[in-house]
Parts: sequence; C-alpha cells; structure tokens
Amino acid sequence: MAMKTAEMVYKTRKTASELFSMDKPENVVFTQNCTHALNLLLYGLLRKGDKVVISDLEHNSVVRPLMDMEKKGLVEVKVIETSLEDHHETVKRFAEAIDEKTKLVLCTHASNVAGVVLPIKEIGEHAHKCGVYFAVDGAQSAGMIPINMKEMNIDFLCVPGHKGLYGPSGTGMLLINCDVMIDPLLKGGTGSLSNQMNMPEFYPDRLESGTQNLSGICGLNAGMNFVRNKTIERLHLHEFYLKKEAYHCLSMCNGVILYTAKPEYLDTVPVLSFNLKGKTGEESSHLLAERGFALRGGLHCAPFAHKKMGTLEQGSARISFGAFNSVNEVYRFCETIKKLQYTV
Amino acid sequence: MAMKTAEMVYKTRKTASELFSMDKPENVVFTQNCTHALNLLLYGLLRKGDKVVISDLEHNSVVRPLMDMEKKGLVEVKVIETSLEDHHETVKRFAEAIDEKTKLVLCTHASNVAGVVLPIKEIGEHAHKCGVYFAVDGAQSAGMIPINMKEMNIDFLCVPGHKGLYGPSGTGMLLINCDVMIDPLLKGGTGSLSNQMNMPEFYPDRLESGTQNLSGICGLNAGMNFVRNKTIERLHLHEFYLKKEAYHCLSMCNGVILYTAKPEYLDTVPVLSFNLKGKTGEESSHLLAERGFALRGGLHCAPFAHKKMGTLEQGSARISFGAFNSVNEVYRFCETIKKLQYTV
Repeated sequence: MAMKTAEMVYKTRKTASELFSMDKPENVVFTQNCTHALNLLLYGLLRKGDKVVISDLEHNSVVRPLMDMEKKGLVEVKVIETSLEDHHETVKRFAEAIDEKTKLVLCTHASNVAGVVLPIKEIGEHAHKCGVYFAVDGAQSAGMIPINMKEMNIDFLCVPGHKGLYGPSGTGMLLINCDVMIDPLLKGGTGSLSNQMNMPEFYPDRLESGTQNLSGICGLNAGMNFVRNKTIERLHLHEFYLKKEAYHCLSMCNGVILYTAKPEYLDTVPVLSFNLKGKTGEESSHLLAERGFALRGGLHCAPFAHKKMGTLEQGSARISFGAFNSVNEVYRFCETIKKLQYTV
Repeated sequence: MAMKTAEMVYKTRKTASELFSMDKPENVVFTQNCTHALNLLLYGLLRKGDKVVISDLEHNSVVRPLMDMEKKGLVEVKVIETSLEDHHETVKRFAEAIDEKTKLVLCTHASNVAGVVLPIKEIGEHAHKCGVYFAVDGAQSAGMIPINMKEMNIDFLCVPGHKGLYGPSGTGMLLINCDVMIDPLLKGGTGSLSNQMNMPEFYPDRLESGTQNLSGICGLNAGMNFVRNKTIERLHLHEFYLKKEAYHCLSMCNGVILYTAKPEYLDTVPVLSFNLKGKTGEESSHLLAERGFALRGGLHCAPFAHKKMGTLEQGSARISFGAFNSVNEVYRFCETIKKLQYTV
C-alpha cells in the first residue's frame, strides 16, 4: 500500500513536470497552497543583502512575506509599476530595476483582480541575461493559459492546486527548474537520512517534511489529467469566450462599473472585476450571492492591484469562469444584474 | 456555500478545543501536519538568545528545526535524558535544566518508537512555576490517551490529524492555550485586513494563510467526532489490550527481539518496536509486509530514541494498533512471526 501510494505521488510529480515543461519530476515540491509555495521560495532562496524585484500587481502571499523580510533588514524590495497597456514599457522597467544586488525577479503571470497577463517570458529573458533567478506566481494562470517553464525562462513556478488545475483545496506546488538548493521552511521527518540532524540535500525530501496530503495529491493528479485531456488551449478559448460575452453584456448595463480591460486578445485570464454603482465589492457580491451566484467581493488579498485600479476603498466583486461554466450561465448572470439595477 | 464552509471549519475548531480542554476555538490553528504545527510553534515563539529544553525522545520534527536554529546561533537547546523507569527522575531533570534564559520546555507526550508515556503534567507544572511556556508533541497520544490542556499545564499542543484523531493525512493542528501572539511561518492572504502589509494580530488569521485543506478539515472533524463518541478512554483500553496480547505472544517467540517495555499499566501508547533476530527493522517489516501486514521499519524519524534503545544501526520494525484492529489480527500476526522464525 505504501509503495503504491509513493508511486501515485511520483506520478503526480511527473504529470506536473510535463504540464509545465520542466525537467525533473523530483523538483516538483508539494505544498499546502500557492501561498506556501511562494513563502517557501522567498524564505528559502533569499539571503541577507539580497534585492528582489516584483510587480505592483502581486498578491499578499508575495507582498506580506517580502515586507516582513524588508522590515527585518534582510532584503530590499523594488516594486515595478507595470503598464497595463504597454508590455514593452513593463519589460523595460523590470530590466532597468535589476542591479548587481538583485537575486530574484518575481512576477505574477496574471493579476487576480484585473485579469491582465504580464509579459513574463520577456521579463524572464532580462532576468537571465543578468544572471538573476526568475520566479512566476501562477495562481491565476496555471491550467488556464499555457506555461512552458523552459521557453518562458522560469526558474521557479508557484501554483495552487484548486484553481485552474481542478485539484482539491489545500494543495499547491513549487516547481524548480534550476540547480539551486533552496532551504526548507518546514524541517522534520523525511523518511530519508533519518539519523542526520539536518535536512537532506536533495529534492523533494529537502522541502517536504511530515505526512503529506495524500488524497489531495491524488486529486491534483486527476485534476491535471483532466486539464491535459481537455488541453489548456481549448479551456482557455472556452473561458475567453465566456469572459468576452460577460464583458459585452455588463458593459451595456448602466448600473455596472467595470474595472477589467475589454478582453480583445487571448492574453487575459478569466476573471472580471466590477461593482454595482454605489455599492462596495462586498455588497455587490452579496446581492448576487443571494440570487445564486458564487463570486467573491472585497480586496482579493491584493491591495497593490486595487490601488492601481482606484478601488482600494470600495474593493470589487469578481466573477471568474471555468470549464464547467456555460454561456447560458453568463446570460443568466447578466440578466440578474440588469434586474438588480432597477430594484436596489 | 462559503458561509457554510466557514461554519464547518469553525465547528472543527470547536470540536478540537473541547476534545483537548482548551478555552478558545479561534486558537485552534490548522496545519498541514504535526511537523508543520511544531515548526510553526518553534519558529514563531523562539527569539535570539532563548533557551529551549526538550527530551531525548523527540522526533526529527522537533530536533531538525531546533538544530537549524542552534546552528544559526539563535537558540540554545538542552536535551534531557529521560528515565524510562522513573518518572520522578525525568521530572527532576527537566526542572533542573530550566534557568532564567529558558523560554520553552517541549516534550513529546509519548515516544513513537518506545511507546512510553512521559509525565507531562508534572513537567508542565515545573515549567509554569518558572514562568516558562510548556509545549507538548501529541503525535503519538492525541486521541489515544486523554489530554486536558488546562489540567496538564499545556500552553501549546501539536497534533497530527491522521493518527489517533482518524482524520485524513495532510491535516494537523497547533492548539494555543495561552495569551502569547506567536509569529506566522507562512505570510499571505488571510481574507482579513487585506490592505495591511503585515499579518493580522489575531488568531487564527495570523497563522493561517492561503486556501485551506477544506475537505481535510471536514474529515478531521468527522474523525474527532468518532473519537468523542467512542471515548478516548474506551479506545485506549481496546488498544492497550491489543498491545498487551501482542507483547505477550511476541515475548514467547525466540526469533523476536522486543524493544518496548512490557505494557503493564495504562500509561503507554499502542506502538510496539521489535526486530526479527538477525534482521534490520526494514528487513523485518518487509518480511511481514509480504505476508499482508502494514507496519513501518527503519528509524521512524527519531534517531535520539533509537540511540537510547541501542538500535541506531539496525532500526526497528514497529507495529501499532487502532480502533479497527481486532485481537484475532494480533494472533494472526504473531502466528506469522512464529512461522517466520523457522523459515527465514
């Protein structure tokens, strides 16, 4: 039974390494969620005196650990103002911020609030030119838009299991596609080299301590196989179509303020931020929840992005689309909003 | 749906707080496993210059983080030689080791190798007399022998979900029954005070970042309710009986070396360490695995305990008993071993 379970866990590493085009399945590290993967990377890689360059669209799972490290005088954090209209400008600003103290450039693949996709391949290219590691937060993109770690110059990819990979909540992964040996965040039993007082010097044991979420990992494998069979390209097109329809309908409602750019090209992820006029994000999402729609309202743990959008005060409601949503659901949603503008 | 899930998560905190007799359900923090709970406690509580006193039966999930902190010059670690025969002697040694630099005494409730239960209530009493925090690793005892955090003077209790609490693997808890605000190990989105760059100053949000293992937590609640309905006292008696029978049968086999003390009183947990003569722990467990028995062989991630038992070289095979084991299974197991001594 133990051997069969170990095989299943290894299979999941293999599925992930193939899905994201990286070399070594043993460098796929299971975590509790994407937050855990990001913390593991940041605390495991960065050392006193290092500088790290990030975008102004990062989630609190990047901002809060880095602010903690900066406050303790460990690292210097440079936040790049991204341009949502001009990718070249964004890449240029990243390139200019890299200096000899920089150890890591970390950038979210896509904003969880604005839905915009950042030019990570080009940013990674500049990082590598300068001999700097490049990490990507794939929370909003893994399984939703193709990610090729090798072609996109990604050394570290952090992903959640329960979003675009259709795994259970409480799963995530850190994928390492370079040779560095980062430090563990959790230290303990690994079932290997048990008589050593320090953690083993090889992956994944070095970074995985204690009993794993085994059913979660098996579920994540099933989810990734679902994605692989559907193909990310087809899922992306389906979700793009739904987002486009939703955007089109909502843009014709007087009572709706849209914060997300019009989805015209494929470089977008299926999240759409808006508010009902005169309502906060939480109020807007609550009104829709009462009418049967599951969406999230508030700051989405990304205050930087809200500041950029001018919604730090009121937050926003956010709808997102997946493989199991249909265009009829989008129409029903928009009809509900149309009715709401006359009644509340 | 989100509200219902939040209620279920809160219910699980409440079940745990009742099962272990501590005050505030919001001070029950969910973790990935017991290792995670122990790391969270150690890195979150200890500061530069602190001394910590531990037993010589600790698991690598205590030893490895502490050796890491000691190596970095952060903390001083004092390891107490426990007496397996004389509890008073053990308590005395703990009491003598506490000085004005000591911030924390941490002790496993029971050895995962030897099965012996330590006098934690009395050790905790001495810690509290000196104004020192007392933490217990409940990996081998939670759900198996009664734990009353208040009466036993426990400030921090670390438990796994998948052992005596009958929850899924990939779950664990840190229970905090004192007023200190420890630092988080993972920093990120909490869904609360999202516009703050630092983590909230209240539990559980401060220590729980990112998406939780929700199905795992619900399963853990079901497991704890199973334990509560059976009662820990009845489960303990059942497992004690099985261990006693197994010990009795194995002690009559010439081909078996037993490392666990004879279970005579109830202060024992249902693990039993042994080897087939001339075989290592891994070989012994493998021979039994081939014959349908699931047991573990090796060092069990507790080199200190093996050193004490004189089995650091060969390790041991370990059998453990639970609610779903029967005495017939114990007899079948012993019969198999009897046959083995003539054939291998």
